[in-house]
Formats: sequence, structure tokens, C-alpha cells
Amino acid sequence: VTFRDKLAAAVVHNRSLLCVGLDPEPARLPAAVAGRDDGVLEFNRRIVDATCDLVCAYKPNFAFYGSLGSRGWATLEATLSHIPSSVPTILDAKVSDIGNTAEHYARMAFDELGADALTVNPYMGRDAVAPFLARRDKGVFLLCLTSNPGAADFETQAGADGPLYLRVAQQAQQWNQAGNAGLVVGATRPEAFSELRALAPGMPFLVPGVGAQGGDLDAVVRHGRDTDGAGLVINASRAVLYTSGGEDFAGAARRAAEELRAAIERCRATTG
Amino acid sequence: VTFRDKLAAAVVHNRSLLCVGLDPEPARLPAAVAGRDDGVLEFNRRIVDATCDLVCAYKPNFAFYGSLGSRGWATLEATLSHIPSSVPTILDAKVSDIGNTAEHYARMAFDELGADALTVNPYMGRDAVAPFLARRDKGVFLLCLTSNPGAADFETQAGADGPLYLRVAQQAQQWNQAGNAGLVVGATRPEAFSELRALAPGMPFLVPGVGAQGGDLDAVVRHGRDTDGAGLVINASRAVLYTSGGEDFAGAARRAAEELRAAIERCRATTG
Repeated sequence: VTFRDKLAAAVVHNRSLLCVGLDPEPARLPAAVAGRDDGVLEFNRRIVDATCDLVCAYKPNFAFYGSLGSRGWATLEATLSHIPSSVPTILDAKVSDIGNTAEHYARMAFDELGADALTVNPYMGRDAVAPFLARRDKGVFLLCLTSNPGAADFETQAGADGPLYLRVAQQAQQWNQAGNAGLVVGATRPEAFSELRALAPGMPFLVPGVGAQGGDLDAVVRHGRDTDGAGLVINASRAVLYTSGGEDFAGAARRAAEELRAAIERCRATTG
Repeated sequence: VTFRDKLAAAVVHNRSLLCVGLDPEPARLPAAVAGRDDGVLEFNRRIVDATCDLVCAYKPNFAFYGSLGSRGWATLEATLSHIPSSVPTILDAKVSDIGNTAEHYARMAFDELGADALTVNPYMGRDAVAPFLARRDKGVFLLCLTSNPGAADFETQAGADGPLYLRVAQQAQQWNQAGNAGLVVGATRPEAFSELRALAPGMPFLVPGVGAQGGDLDAVVRHGRDTDGAGLVINASRAVLYTSGGEDFAGAARRAAEELRAAIERCRATTG
């Protein structure tokens, strides 16, 4: 089953465009798991168990596992294995490298870790993206317009055909022969969603920045939704993971995920 | 000791601007080590033992270890530990992410793996680079103009102040308050070295593409060298690692490294 089909099925089955970012920080682990040797893994397991009927995807960010050393790699593997196979996984590693090396990253993400999709930094161009897109059953989200202030340094700088991020979207559309490309578009820039959706119909947008970063959910859904009403994978990490440090942190995470899912569904209903 | 000082000392001590890329491919391992459980690590160890008096740095690319799964992480750790502490190490992971997440990558590269320097993709801008530059004792090489054909897709595209890669170099120069920034500049584009060196005096350039990719060594040294005659970290991977599949593959690698080092030194002498 392809990432695309798996995502579509999870969106329908869980009535959700919400993606939960599995970015565990040891310093923020609730007391209930903090003392354990496998505290990070147990935290992830309980978050997944509490939310897996509410999400369309999970997105672990590689950095949070890499910073734990070799234990981190094992934790990432075990976390990905624990996620029900009906929910697609997006490994957020923002990788970039040329042909032969990119193939090694594809093997790492898709074969070794078993992720269904991967984030890729497009800076190096076509031959740094092609080896990922060649894995037709896997999803490839190219960084386009990110949610951080630094996006103004290069991404929104004007070139001959408009800002760099639009050129990235145009190229992604051209390269998307297998229909497995997507774009990362930050929720903090809702004004960009209309033009990107017009440029890239049918392409899923991975949208960070609605939770802790304060993006405008209504504008994202209004301007970013695709003709089928979906096409958005709206990520929240801290806003779901760390709502409670108490014994019932997983229950609190579930309630936060339910509220976010419902808020997104309200936007979908009113902008339909 | 800072990366900068360690690099300068290795350049002088080994009379070398040559960096060897430790990018082991299981399918290309010589028979002498291919059968071993720790074949990749043993290959790296023998390459390092055979070349460590000839190089100014080693550059393992993370992808080649990530594609080996959890064994790969351990192999990368053990490889980095095996490199003599007098030779600086550059982890080539081309990472990019925002503030908090970037800090986790810094911890992974510098604290968990113990690398002296890291490659970083600048696409996301200032706040995706700052957490690395804040590690003042570590080196941070920003992708600028890479050696692959895809560099034409975005890197060399014209913006208001010239091509994107020049803007990256200008920004890097501004951000380089601690003197620990460097640039990745591909050897296949020697015409760019003069303008980049003029823009970024004192900044080390990490230069891939002289070996298998066929860059022009003389032009790189002529236009890229700094006022002190150094400022270049010229990387070769396949051209050193895989010159022989025979029993004495490490000896063959040493001869290839000696030849490359000598060729670079001849360029330095004639362009001085």
C-alpha cells in the first residue's frame, strides 16, 4: 500500500487531518515515565495508544532521537514499529544529498526504519530529490515555505519568477511524475496557501506551526484544502505531547488531540 | 581546542589540504574485510590507519551509516573514536531544522558522536543555523554551491542581489560572529571560487568533487586559497577508498591519498 493511499484511508477512517509530531524531550517527560530506562519509548507508546484513532499520521523528528545517541536509534525503530500499520508515518529528517548518497538516506528512512514518508530539503536541486521520488510507494515532502522567521532569509527572497519557495513548488510539481511528492508549508504564512494550492493541485501539504507557533488554522484549511477537502497534514507536537506532566499525561494528550481534530473539522465544515 | 585550531594544526603538521570522505558502501568492501561482522568498521579503521598522516580532516557522511540501521550508528561512533584526536572530523549530515530541533542535531553531532564540525543546509535561514554557530568551538559548514547538476535548479538562480549561493555566502559572513562558519563549494564550479573567497575571507571552504566528480584542482586552489595559503578542505571519497579491492586495499588508498595530497601541494606551490 502506498503512502498516498494509506494517508487517504486514515484521513477518512479517523476523520482527521491532524498529525502528531513525536518529538520527545527527556527534560519534559512526565514523572510517570521519566524514571524508566526506556522512558522516551514508553512516553511515545502511551501517546500513540492514546491518540492513534484521532490522527491521519505521526511525524517523528529524527533530531530528537539522534540526540539520544545509539539508544535513540533503537527508540525511533521501536516507536515506528509500535504505530498501527493503518496510520502512516512521516520521518522528519529534512535530508539532502546527491544521487548515490540520497539513496542511502532512502534506505535508512524507508527500509531500515520503515517510515512511509520522509521530509527532504530541496536546496541541492533535482538530483538530490530524484532518488526519493523514485520510491513511488513512499511520500516525499519537500521543504517549501517553513514556519520560522528565517524563512525570510532565502525562502521568500525574490528571484526571476517570484520567491524561491514558489520556484520550489513549481519544480516539485514538474518532478512529481509518480504522484508521491508533497510540500512542507508553515501555518504561520496562510497567505501563501492559495497560490501554492493553485500551483500544486493534488499534492499533500505538511503543515507545521499550528500549535505552539500560533498559526491560523482557519486560513490554512480555507486556502490550503484540496478539491477533495483534504490534502493537508496538520502537525502539532508540543501542543499535544506536553499538555500535562501528571499521571494521566496520555489522557491529556488525547483531549488536546481531540480538540485540535475537532477545530480542524469545524474549519473544513465551514469552508466546504 | 576549537575545530578551527585543530584544522590549522593538521594542515601544517600533515602538510595537507586533503580530507578523506569515510563513506563505506557494503557492496564495495574489499574481500579482505567483506566477510567480517564488523566489515565496515574494519574497513574504516584500516583506511584511517593508512592515511591519518596525510590528511587535514576526515568526513564521514551520515547517510552511509544510517542506511546500515542501528549497527550503522555504532559503526559511526566507533569510526569517529578511532580517528586520532589530532585530526578533525566533519560529520556530513547536511542537517536543517529550527531552533529547538537544531539544538538536538547539535547535541547529536557534537556531543553524542563527538564530531568537530558539521555540514548544515541553509535553506531555512538564520534561526536554523544559529544553534550550530552558537557552538563556538565547533565548525559549521553551510551548503553554498554544490558540485551536482541540480545546483542549477535553485543555488545558481538569480535573485535581487545575484544568485542564491552568493546570498548564502553573504549571510554566512554576517552570521559568522564566532569565526566558526565555513562554506561547502563544489570543485566542479571553479569560476565561483574567486568571488566566494573575496566575499568570505578567512572562512574555510569544504570542497567536494575533485575525485570521482572530476573538478579542476588547479583552479580550486588558485582561486579558493586564503591569504594564508590554506582555507580549503578538499574532499575525496571514492577516489581514495576504492582504488583496490585486493588484500592491500589500505596501501592502495594510502598511495591514492599521497598522490592527491601531492597534487594539491603542487598547486599551492605554483599559485603562491
